[in-house]
Amino acid sequence: MNQDYIKPDNWSIIEEGFDRARVKSSESLFSIGNGAMGQRANFEENYSGETFQGSYIAGIYYPDKTKVGWWKNGYPEYFAKVLNAPNWIGIDIEINGEKLDLNTCLLITNFRRELNMKEGWYSRSFEAKLKNGTEISVFVKRFLSLNLDEVGIINYEITPLNKDSKIVYKPYIDAGVTNEDANWEEKFWEPIDVKKSGSEAFITAQTFKTHFKVTTFMHNTILNNGEKTAISPSNIDAKNDKIQFSYDVIVAQGQKSSIQKIGGYTVSLNHENTLLAAEKVTQAALLLGYEKMLADQIDAWAKIWEMSDITIDGDVKAQQGIRFNIFQLNQTYLGKDSRLNIGPKGFTGEKYGGSTYWDTEAYCIPFYMATKDQEVARNLLTYRYNQLDKAIENATKLGFSNGAALYPMVTMNGEECHNEWEITFEEIHRNGAIAFAIYNFYRYTGDYSYIPEKGLEVLIAIARFWHQRANFSTNLNQYVILGVTGPNEYENNVNNNFYTNYIAKWCLEYTAEQIQKVSLEYPLDHKRITEKVKITNTELQSWKKVSDNMYFPFSKEHNVYLQQDGFLDKDLVRVADLDKSQRPINQKWSWDRILRSPYIKQADVLQCFYFFEDHFSNEELKNNFEFYESFTVHESSLSPCVHSIQAALLDKIDMAYTFYLRTSRLDLDDYNKEVEEGCHITSMAGTWMSIVEGFGGMRIKDDKLHFSPKIPKQWQGYSFKINFRNQILKVAITPHKTTFSINGDSTLAIIVNGKEVLVKPELLATVSVSLN
Amino acid sequence: MNQDYIKPDNWSIIEEGFDRARVKSSESLFSIGNGAMGQRANFEENYSGETFQGSYIAGIYYPDKTKVGWWKNGYPEYFAKVLNAPNWIGIDIEINGEKLDLNTCLLITNFRRELNMKEGWYSRSFEAKLKNGTEISVFVKRFLSLNLDEVGIINYEITPLNKDSKIVYKPYIDAGVTNEDANWEEKFWEPIDVKKSGSEAFITAQTFKTHFKVTTFMHNTILNNGEKTAISPSNIDAKNDKIQFSYDVIVAQGQKSSIQKIGGYTVSLNHENTLLAAEKVTQAALLLGYEKMLADQIDAWAKIWEMSDITIDGDVKAQQGIRFNIFQLNQTYLGKDSRLNIGPKGFTGEKYGGSTYWDTEAYCIPFYMATKDQEVARNLLTYRYNQLDKAIENATKLGFSNGAALYPMVTMNGEECHNEWEITFEEIHRNGAIAFAIYNFYRYTGDYSYIPEKGLEVLIAIARFWHQRANFSTNLNQYVILGVTGPNEYENNVNNNFYTNYIAKWCLEYTAEQIQKVSLEYPLDHKRITEKVKITNTELQSWKKVSDNMYFPFSKEHNVYLQQDGFLDKDLVRVADLDKSQRPINQKWSWDRILRSPYIKQADVLQCFYFFEDHFSNEELKNNFEFYESFTVHESSLSPCVHSIQAALLDKIDMAYTFYLRTSRLDLDDYNKEVEEGCHITSMAGTWMSIVEGFGGMRIKDDKLHFSPKIPKQWQGYSFKINFRNQILKVAITPHKTTFSINGDSTLAIIVNGKEVLVKPELLATVSVSLN
Repeated sequence: MNQDYIKPDNWSIIEEGFDRARVKSSESLFSIGNGAMGQRANFEENYSGETFQGSYIAGIYYPDKTKVGWWKNGYPEYFAKVLNAPNWIGIDIEINGEKLDLNTCLLITNFRRELNMKEGWYSRSFEAKLKNGTEISVFVKRFLSLNLDEVGIINYEITPLNKDSKIVYKPYIDAGVTNEDANWEEKFWEPIDVKKSGSEAFITAQTFKTHFKVTTFMHNTILNNGEKTAISPSNIDAKNDKIQFSYDVIVAQGQKSSIQKIGGYTVSLNHENTLLAAEKVTQAALLLGYEKMLADQIDAWAKIWEMSDITIDGDVKAQQGIRFNIFQLNQTYLGKDSRLNIGPKGFTGEKYGGSTYWDTEAYCIPFYMATKDQEVARNLLTYRYNQLDKAIENATKLGFSNGAALYPMVTMNGEECHNEWEITFEEIHRNGAIAFAIYNFYRYTGDYSYIPEKGLEVLIAIARFWHQRANFSTNLNQYVILGVTGPNEYENNVNNNFYTNYIAKWCLEYTAEQIQKVSLEYPLDHKRITEKVKITNTELQSWKKVSDNMYFPFSKEHNVYLQQDGFLDKDLVRVADLDKSQRPINQKWSWDRILRSPYIKQADVLQCFYFFEDHFSNEELKNNFEFYESFTVHESSLSPCVHSIQAALLDKIDMAYTFYLRTSRLDLDDYNKEVEEGCHITSMAGTWMSIVEGFGGMRIKDDKLHFSPKIPKQWQGYSFKINFRNQILKVAITPHKTTFSINGDSTLAIIVNGKEVLVKPELLATVSVSLN
Repeated sequence: MNQDYIKPDNWSIIEEGFDRARVKSSESLFSIGNGAMGQRANFEENYSGETFQGSYIAGIYYPDKTKVGWWKNGYPEYFAKVLNAPNWIGIDIEINGEKLDLNTCLLITNFRRELNMKEGWYSRSFEAKLKNGTEISVFVKRFLSLNLDEVGIINYEITPLNKDSKIVYKPYIDAGVTNEDANWEEKFWEPIDVKKSGSEAFITAQTFKTHFKVTTFMHNTILNNGEKTAISPSNIDAKNDKIQFSYDVIVAQGQKSSIQKIGGYTVSLNHENTLLAAEKVTQAALLLGYEKMLADQIDAWAKIWEMSDITIDGDVKAQQGIRFNIFQLNQTYLGKDSRLNIGPKGFTGEKYGGSTYWDTEAYCIPFYMATKDQEVARNLLTYRYNQLDKAIENATKLGFSNGAALYPMVTMNGEECHNEWEITFEEIHRNGAIAFAIYNFYRYTGDYSYIPEKGLEVLIAIARFWHQRANFSTNLNQYVILGVTGPNEYENNVNNNFYTNYIAKWCLEYTAEQIQKVSLEYPLDHKRITEKVKITNTELQSWKKVSDNMYFPFSKEHNVYLQQDGFLDKDLVRVADLDKSQRPINQKWSWDRILRSPYIKQADVLQCFYFFEDHFSNEELKNNFEFYESFTVHESSLSPCVHSIQAALLDKIDMAYTFYLRTSRLDLDDYNKEVEEGCHITSMAGTWMSIVEGFGGMRIKDDKLHFSPKIPKQWQGYSFKINFRNQILKVAITPHKTTFSINGDSTLAIIVNGKEVLVKPELLATVSVSLN
């Protein structure tokens, strides 16, 4: 049974009723972020129950000393941890001398959380009876400003219900925080400076080792019935890593009292003097004030939704699911800064560490290309370009030469920070996805300039890696790639993983083609690059020998490509025939049993068919899909989306819908029973793909948008928008017709179900097709 | 360059000259042990330089909380660590107010260590000039009694050379010790009781978690010019985990002063009241006195050598090597206690943890069978029988059923304590060696009784494991074993490792045969066992289906069995063609590179040929040897011995000799540059095999001893003894003749080079063959 306490709603995530057992899950689900920082939905006031405290700042990490049982040569010295940042949201509350703590109150009623995705804020309200008999009503709203992205604001409102009460607000900032995920239980933050003045306080702390300097700040205002007061702190408790103010107020029964707390971070990534910057941004926020900042927030989110919203009619859970995914992606990464990337848990938890996985290139870039200015996706590509030197260094450490690059499996700053040999050293297909994203960016945007400017150097370094990593088998008289882990991590150290061999061959060929194209069309760039990387025709011929003679395991009997050598020697019991008590196998089985089983964690051969759909016939896709899906347990969050897209293509719409629900409500319904650790951010881009590319059938071929709309029977209609080469195309699909409309002033020719349709500005283009 | 500071000597290991850089290596090489306890050759007096302190007690271990980077289902909660035991050897020395410390003396001359293997003692002597100008000469001798195996004794003698001097002897016992190998830097010992009286002191401490109680004791006597004095302590410093006495003496220039310290351990494995036992054994030792105990020690070692010595004429390094190996094996394990086993580092270091690996069955048992009463080998088999329940529990945890057993990769008490998935879960061939040892014991001793009594239950549980672990490949129409690590640990998670498949098939067949034989010859045992384990004919038929149809990868092109599926797809560059700068590859290459290379850590296919030599032709051995040896880097201590035996069989005597030197002087010459961590005890049994089975060509076939003597050109002759079914056969081989002699009163028929030779009591049987 999946969790089902989230109320269905088109625009909000809502929880009703207080349940201690759900606190950590809700802390993940109600997380807020603005691309620059984010935080779990921890309570502002003290909570003595089970909680997972988390505030995070983009780009700020800690290199935790590696912990392994058995060291292997080549392991990195550290693992870049997502860092729990100083707390600025804390406001302890005392009511008539008793600390407010939802874990110890006598009674809590009307507890409600709302994450308003349309407007970009999070609220919490409840009524509580304290042990001292005081009854209060509380309403808290907070948001992280999109416009002023170093600032968040909290409005914490209390109404005494049964008597006049003394309320003490005790807002604080605290750099004495720790990580749950710390290998050696060390402290990651070193406080270096504290400043307080009037209603403001600042703590500057730096991370050990990386020495990122962060000023955490707060400014507090006490309001009475919504009117600002001039009340100043009755007490200030200042330690070197924590400052706490106390504001005493007497509030009449039924009157509203509140504190508005402005807080946030300024960081040395962006400022020479973080304290000065913090003082400035606090003033800027104060000048705007709470109401104006909230209005700006609503506007800013409206602009995001204007571009990226997907509507679904007649299926509120599906609607809520897709909006939650789009909302979280936008909370995590907005693409303004090419030093940042899309962490797998975003700002919702610490798990996995690192910020950058192949998820970015394989799953996230299409979403950002289609729903943002193309600069955003370009920034994601540039991120890898800027880390090319470190990828070359990494490959050199592993025995490669001549400028070959192996991008890290997990990274913050370009250095590898993962340490499982079967992943770190062997899950090398990530190199392929990084090359594919370069191709995909050009395919989608039509902007070739990135390749001569930056992309080609990355492509060449990756091609050199594949060229060296393959070896000639005299036995097969072909090139093989031995000892890899494919996308399906339920196989380790296998030979000739089809996906890996295929993308390696493709990288070699694509890179050779781009060298040729750049030499013809961008001769100056060609000269600059070839001189820099010293590439010769002999080397290109040597690549060609490998790419022309790559080995691909194939089964004539099943008419499918083999996921890897020897796949058919397994005990091929299909998932449908596996005892349900054995699942999820990653919780029930020892690792060796998983490895020798035929069960697949996520699309592997099928991932190849997804990337290179045009290289294969529909018949081939059908055979491989039916064979491999039957062995797939989808225990990776990245699996259902690809299957949903392919099921839609193969007209298995019910199956596509099931996969869609699984991907879109993975966290809301907690399919994997782990949402308390944080949300699965990167797979959320896969959810978007499963609507746009799956049901909508969107593809880019020969510089044109193609669609082949389909619709699940549960839906009355759905719509999405695409930013295609600076034209915004809106697509609305119902069971009986599909309509297209476009902003701007030029006509867009698209292909729908194989036929050209001209979409003219301000006019609805309608294609009538019955989809049921 | 290997290390070469050990002086060649037939009977002793000798170091001359003090070199700080060699201290840790010598601490390993000069280790002493008596089967019940042992210790590194740490200095008695304080040493402020680099040292690795270690005292160890057989059977006493600590379950250290597992440390891994990434947890896998099925990993054990702890790793049983070899435990650094309380220190009883410590004697701090003050000379005229200055602490004696070889790291800070002004001058050290005539420093000499000797490990006298013939007599079983270790001595150290030197002359030192202290910073205060005093010059002294020191002679220390210590040994661990074989007869009174809870007791060790030290004679520490000082002569002031240039002035009358005040000497303070400060002997202590100390339970405040720590392990170098501790996952979480925790303390492993909890002191619980301290007692002192007169010249004696006792600390009783227990291990955390396992609660082994150990009383560490000391008794001190001060001697003047060899005469016992009645000097009593001038000071006693007693803490809860350490007691130190001070004895002040004034010694005239040129006079000898000494302290005799008796010490050791009594443990709760053997005594209800360890303190009482310690008091008793101290009295027993005192009653005997130093001289008598030393004389007994020499006698006891003479008895061991009488049975197990190997002589080599004309090659003192080879002679020293083999004696060092035999000596260390006897120091480590004497076979009196079936709760004990042969740790890979014995009592010379902490590394590897655990006490029991497949090394015991695969390498050590032949040595103990041939050089001890057969009870010793039987005790080693019984050790596994006693742990059968835990092996079944282990297999159950990994998903096996019906009483299948998987013996642990590493253990102290029968529970698995290793935690690398590719080893713990996949290096399952260990189960085969345990079955093979049962067969081998019967083959060698002719005593079948162990099988109906205990062995058959072990065999059945192992056969059940293999039966379930193999799966039918519809593709190959045969049974396969997927996802294993063979003896060659430079391959992980491979399919159809030839060695593993072969021993699995053999186990199934051998077990079925033994069930049949026991049913006919031991019907009562058969009834007892079959009722206990509920075995049916249907199950046996099902085993047969697997064993009759096991798949073995084979290369027609090379006419060799394949180490595993896909071996021939590797880049098959031979070791001879590999750049020397790349070796040892385990220090130069990342793990993935090692795995995809063809390089072999230790015999794998050849290990199978070693175990089952009779199943293959010499031609087959030759092909496989020449193919695989060319890819073998011998980076396991267990590799050269098997290769030496097979090279001898194939008449590659120079090669056999090179392998012999490598195995026999592995530690003395520090081939692997790691002897400071301890000696490679289990591979030392392989050294013994490489002489007896390699050059001597000893085999047991059809209840008869066979020999086919060979001799390296560097040797004038060599001899060894064999306890074969309670007859002691001495074999002496020279280039021109081989002689056999026997104790006892019955004639022994043996086969020499295929011809029967009768060896009659007290008569020399001579076979003249020219071996050069």
